[in-house]
Amino acid sequence: MKINGKNFRTIWHTFGAESDAKNAIVEIIDQTLLPHAFEVKCISSLEAMVTAIKTMQVRGAPLIGVAAAYGMALALQRDAGDAHMLQASKELLASRPTAVNLRWAVERMLARLQPLAAPARLSAAWAEATAICEEEVVLNQAIGQHGLKLIQSLISIKATGGQILNILTHCNAGWLATVDWGTALAPIYAAHDAGLAVHVWVDETRPRNQGASLTAWELGQHGVPHTVITDNAGGHLMQHSKVDMVLVGADRVTRTGDVGNKIGTYLKALAAFDNQVPFYAALPSTTIDWAMTDGLHEIPIEERSADEVALVTGRLATGELATVNILPAGSKAASPAFDVTPARLVTGIITERGVCAPGQLLAIFEKT
Amino acid sequence: MKINGKNFRTIWHTFGAESDAKNAIVEIIDQTLLPHAFEVKCISSLEAMVTAIKTMQVRGAPLIGVAAAYGMALALQRDAGDAHMLQASKELLASRPTAVNLRWAVERMLARLQPLAAPARLSAAWAEATAICEEEVVLNQAIGQHGLKLIQSLISIKATGGQILNILTHCNAGWLATVDWGTALAPIYAAHDAGLAVHVWVDETRPRNQGASLTAWELGQHGVPHTVITDNAGGHLMQHSKVDMVLVGADRVTRTGDVGNKIGTYLKALAAFDNQVPFYAALPSTTIDWAMTDGLHEIPIEERSADEVALVTGRLATGELATVNILPAGSKAASPAFDVTPARLVTGIITERGVCAPGQLLAIFEKT
Repeated sequence: MKINGKNFRTIWHTFGAESDAKNAIVEIIDQTLLPHAFEVKCISSLEAMVTAIKTMQVRGAPLIGVAAAYGMALALQRDAGDAHMLQASKELLASRPTAVNLRWAVERMLARLQPLAAPARLSAAWAEATAICEEEVVLNQAIGQHGLKLIQSLISIKATGGQILNILTHCNAGWLATVDWGTALAPIYAAHDAGLAVHVWVDETRPRNQGASLTAWELGQHGVPHTVITDNAGGHLMQHSKVDMVLVGADRVTRTGDVGNKIGTYLKALAAFDNQVPFYAALPSTTIDWAMTDGLHEIPIEERSADEVALVTGRLATGELATVNILPAGSKAASPAFDVTPARLVTGIITERGVCAPGQLLAIFEKT
Repeated sequence: MKINGKNFRTIWHTFGAESDAKNAIVEIIDQTLLPHAFEVKCISSLEAMVTAIKTMQVRGAPLIGVAAAYGMALALQRDAGDAHMLQASKELLASRPTAVNLRWAVERMLARLQPLAAPARLSAAWAEATAICEEEVVLNQAIGQHGLKLIQSLISIKATGGQILNILTHCNAGWLATVDWGTALAPIYAAHDAGLAVHVWVDETRPRNQGASLTAWELGQHGVPHTVITDNAGGHLMQHSKVDMVLVGADRVTRTGDVGNKIGTYLKALAAFDNQVPFYAALPSTTIDWAMTDGLHEIPIEERSADEVALVTGRLATGELATVNILPAGSKAASPAFDVTPARLVTGIITERGVCAPGQLLAIFEKT
């Protein structure tokens, strides 16, 4: 998608002039600096990729999966033997616990690479990581097209001519959370590009403000009308018919349709249910954990540092970036990073195969 | 309550050496500077009091009522005639729209003062404002004692010996929101002082962070164990049985028990209901609007400046205060300040008369 009119993806690799897999590097947009600064960061080792994932320079379940795949390729540059490859996969798997795409991508890389002799692995690793990356883009485009039809139908139900469809989203499930297009935002971009009148209520999404910083920024760059609200405001807006649809991404979805997503999603799902507002999660099937049936008890919830609650970064009036501590000295804080929305609160799930009720995932993907 | 070991109230007046009603002043704690700085501010005119209310140097429904009563006394220092007195009452009523205590206090002052000849009004105004102030303290002490019994009974249900009762609160309904003791926090202080093991989950309460700044600060000053969480986290904690009770204040409650309170309260009430966690609102009867039956459609909801969402104030690493803007340039924001929790989600209401179901307010207060 566009940044200052120029097309970007969130992650890409460069082989250099020699097309040399041994010295190829990966580049990412450092998302910890957005929306205040736009910087591309060069990642040239497994360690740098693990750090980028842990510190959320790359974040968003689909993007983390692609980043981990590239991390495997970078690891093999140093040593393509079994021991080092397995060690690398463990370090990547430990970097973030909730997103299932991370495990999916690492396991796919291992499945491709383990049967090969060590000398053949490096070029295969780059090829496989690239394939994962390109496939993600195709998945997200498909999600966008299926979601577009859903938005069209909601507008046709609502519309008595020229009305705006108000969509509330939480956290960032936009193109910055993927390689391109996004998950929850892919249908919104598709609708906006198709000339439909959509307006997005953007939850700021404390503690890391991914909504206020990333979602607002990428919607603004693309020209989509939006308004940032506090995480507290969505229920009130729904009570007063100012939200027509809630549309979020997901970090892990069970085979039964329970949705693990950014902390606070569950509260919006409750409010949507209480006010008969449709609640949809949009995600590629790589986000579905086919082994899990009870999201509330099975999806691991990452506990992040209390500093995330205490420290807020933004621009001073001078334009400089600064970080302020909002807590009284001596008060402690806690930061669970995700919650689980039970399938009973979910109207539908949008995947690359179309829109379905949460209980229909198994049928849609022909799983047993 | 105590600040650095010394007893304070949030508002008081001083007649000076001459006991001169004409030159008496009011003093307040400037709550916009907490928790980073503690400053007492002198208020010596109606205009200064209106500004203090509008800019939330004094805030919290009960305290706003007392501040408005003192504002009437200050206004009469300049001119105790009918025209000026009525004009002053209008300015005070317009300073914040949601808190019913403000209207209650101004109307009580007018009812006391209008029958008097102008020269008799000033000393009567100071006496009446003082009476309102002292009565608020008594009301809050009574709320504390009734709520204490409720906490004791919840502990006795839960306890298999030595367990901690976890109470989630939203915004600041502590002594800083009243004259002393608080509403929602009065039972917590009473329980803590009685040696009961209570721990408070403090919602930070965006956009103004009254939880992270005021509630955490006053609980810390009093030694009550507490943990600050984002507004997004409470639902997840309830899903995992980490909250035994939700206890909030209120800005306006209808005769039918609908609770108007800080934006986001409704989301916590939904989560409490979904997880069978008891949800209580604690308030003096001055917060009840006996004219209203449908909170969702009748309680006016203040729309505050978008800057409240954009700008966050805290301490830099150097200790200096600074304000940062968290939004991308060009993104707009909206800030509805309150929402309404329907009575169907409210387990009980704690007033100076005891604990009752929301539908029993009329009976308890013998209204028809």
